Amino acid sequence: MKMDKVARCVIADPAGWTTVSTETAYASPYVRVDEVTVRTPSQPDRDLSWTVVRRKSAVAVAAMTEDGKLVMVEQERVAARRALTEFPAGQIDDVENRFEADVILGTLQAELREEVGYEIAPDAQIISLGYYFTSQGFTDEHIYLFFVSKVVPLSTGNAPDASESILGTRLIDPAMLKQMVASNEVSDSLTLALYARLTARSILL
Amino acid sequence: MKMDKVARCVIADPAGWTTVSTETAYASPYVRVDEVTVRTPSQPDRDLSWTVVRRKSAVAVAAMTEDGKLVMVEQERVAARRALTEFPAGQIDDVENRFEADVILGTLQAELREEVGYEIAPDAQIISLGYYFTSQGFTDEHIYLFFVSKVVPLSTGNAPDASESILGTRLIDPAMLKQMVASNEVSDSLTLALYARLTARSILL
Repeated sequence: MKMDKVARCVIADPAGWTTVSTETAYASPYVRVDEVTVRTPSQPDRDLSWTVVRRKSAVAVAAMTEDGKLVMVEQERVAARRALTEFPAGQIDDVENRFEADVILGTLQAELREEVGYEIAPDAQIISLGYYFTSQGFTDEHIYLFFVSKVVPLSTGNAPDASESILGTRLIDPAMLKQMVASNEVSDSLTLALYARLTARSILL
Repeated sequence: MKMDKVARCVIADPAGWTTVSTETAYASPYVRVDEVTVRTPSQPDRDLSWTVVRRKSAVAVAAMTEDGKLVMVEQERVAARRALTEFPAGQIDDVENRFEADVILGTLQAELREEVGYEIAPDAQIISLGYYFTSQGFTDEHIYLFFVSKVVPLSTGNAPDASESILGTRLIDPAMLKQMVASNEVSDSLTLALYARLTARSILL
């Protein structure tokens, strides 16, 4: 198994940002709402206040079967109040070691197994496609993006988390994915972000 | 001014979803955290509980100058703790009328004026590119996407909101945008989502 340029996906806290104060207004196991005041590189003498919703970072993966199909998952999403067809994704639960390549890769492997019932082939190439912020206006949540060139189905199928509502695995031809992106059938940020990176890097056409 | 298929961008609440209970755990002018219990179309007899962060919907726009450049905005984002180069975007503040085409269009026009200092040319085509959910695992936030074929600079320049930290307007060639998407320089969901829709629909190559 080869992991290409994982370091590239690790984000660092940029220079020139300082925190004046942070007050946590709400916290649960899933999200934390912080009222923060910061100073930024462009305005080091002015306080800027903002409400930031903190959430674990996550991993999303476009994985290809031996016959060139992309493995996607259809699931009912409570927050969006609809079923969406997405690439597999999951949060990095080992928060302390969230910047470690093997922790990120472990999350990727676990999501492929649990959500869609596939595993990475021994001769697969794993390509890091960077990361993105899901909604920079209000949350620090960011998702690392990967492409896996070859996955194979598990004989045991998938093993979805009982707290979620996963409807099934879908194998999608790249030409069909393009149509789904164009027509709004794909309408979530992680699948659109992966599609953007894959096409801009000519991994998908 | 022509607005193509705006109805397509309006999302409806799908059939088969029922709310068992909603408890608001936190609320501010910016976000509301609801603990919800729902029943879904696939499991109408089972309660599914989830924490949903509610936020206003928004509009994002890829607008092109007469000489074929895309108008982008560079701004310091407190939640992401860095400066990002993005397409202009803004929330739909008239929540009551948020599904009305003229309210959506008005938000689009206001963001072009305020964030980057451009206005829509009288003979421009405005193409609706649907919508997307920014992070379907935890928020109902969704952003309507548009392409505007022709914008012209305002003589007065931009007029950014004092509560934000906008660094400036950038005019980006489509080939450069592709490189920025590929290299992780573009790393926010709205710009990646617009790039995905624009390329899948062959509006950009």
